[in-house]
Amino acid sequence: MSKERVPVVEQIFSANDQIAMLNRQRLNAAGVFSINLMASPGAGKTSFILRTIEGLKNILRLGVVEGDTAPVTIDSDLILAAGMPAVQINTGGDCHLDAVMLKEGLNQLPLNDLDLVIVENVGNLVCPASFKLGTHLNVLVASIPEGDDKPYKYPAMYRGVDVLVINKMDLLPYIPFKMDYFLQGVQILNPGVISFPVSCATGDGISKWCHWLIAQRNHFIGHGD
Amino acid sequence: MSKERVPVVEQIFSANDQIAMLNRQRLNAAGVFSINLMASPGAGKTSFILRTIEGLKNILRLGVVEGDTAPVTIDSDLILAAGMPAVQINTGGDCHLDAVMLKEGLNQLPLNDLDLVIVENVGNLVCPASFKLGTHLNVLVASIPEGDDKPYKYPAMYRGVDVLVINKMDLLPYIPFKMDYFLQGVQILNPGVISFPVSCATGDGISKWCHWLIAQRNHFIGHGD
Repeated sequence: MSKERVPVVEQIFSANDQIAMLNRQRLNAAGVFSINLMASPGAGKTSFILRTIEGLKNILRLGVVEGDTAPVTIDSDLILAAGMPAVQINTGGDCHLDAVMLKEGLNQLPLNDLDLVIVENVGNLVCPASFKLGTHLNVLVASIPEGDDKPYKYPAMYRGVDVLVINKMDLLPYIPFKMDYFLQGVQILNPGVISFPVSCATGDGISKWCHWLIAQRNHFIGHGD
Repeated sequence: MSKERVPVVEQIFSANDQIAMLNRQRLNAAGVFSINLMASPGAGKTSFILRTIEGLKNILRLGVVEGDTAPVTIDSDLILAAGMPAVQINTGGDCHLDAVMLKEGLNQLPLNDLDLVIVENVGNLVCPASFKLGTHLNVLVASIPEGDDKPYKYPAMYRGVDVLVINKMDLLPYIPFKMDYFLQGVQILNPGVISFPVSCATGDGISKWCHWLIAQRNHFIGHGD
């Protein structure tokens, strides 16, 4: 019996996770903070990005990576119209972004001139939860009209996110949404997760979110420059 | 050179499609009409099923197959409470139902005592479009709060369905939803597809849908009995 020690590999990274790690290193090296925005179709990801652009203009330089299952540029056109660099990734029917797609997206952005990159994932409450991109934070945009049972039905997504945005708060009077029941489900799956109730229709709650985002950037990246 | 004819296989069915075909044969043999309900999370599939049960009670004998990504029985409990046989399929995190899962679900239903089986797919506007189940019709439940751009962003789903339900019509006054723009996208992808505007909150439009569904059953299955 040999007395040589058997090499033990502590952690196996998937190919996707390895690329995600490289994406993170690249973002860190450029001093760019980044978030991965996930949600159901129609929860208001693009409107939320537009409100965030508005709230952070003159403070942070933003870029946006738009994931779409089809070659439509509806969302990226809106971002460009807001004066921000945007890249559209057509997944070719795939139901999520992965780290390789983000790598390609980052290639198209002027990273050295940016402070924050917002990645808008494909609208889907299941698949994107399984694919790390290398962004600093995973953000879930829930919305009131989706109903208060979504944490219970899509636990993998709610369990895996760092921050929860609750959008379309302006519709609360018209919909039987029990906030206590919703938040109870969230806390069971993701204890202590911070949440931001907002309305992208009225702008309510966006300022608080933007201040928090700036603080997160300082935490992860430093004041830099 | 041999003069023997080369055998040509006209159509290759995937393993999933083969099982889907068997599901259809089994449903036909039992005289059961079936629909596959697809939608975003929170578009109101379960509320729509409950309204359909209400509209068809004393006319058709219904059973429901509920697809969920997690072992929660919120939806199937509601169906059972409405007095209908329901089976829950936990996909174990998978983002869609497939034909094998439906086969297992059908095993748990008293098919010979039913006229209609409604399959509630996983809430997802991307993946379920790629998996035939063997049901007679694919039904998409869109909803007003999702926004009027969904056909343009999720074309594979809109292209592949036989009928479109537009739910949450009661929220139209509170949301900037351009119906013309929405329907234009639908017609480009799926010319002539029939659509039913409904509100599961108020019950509006459900009666028309139920009458159409009965006619479809007669068309596919015959008056039977």
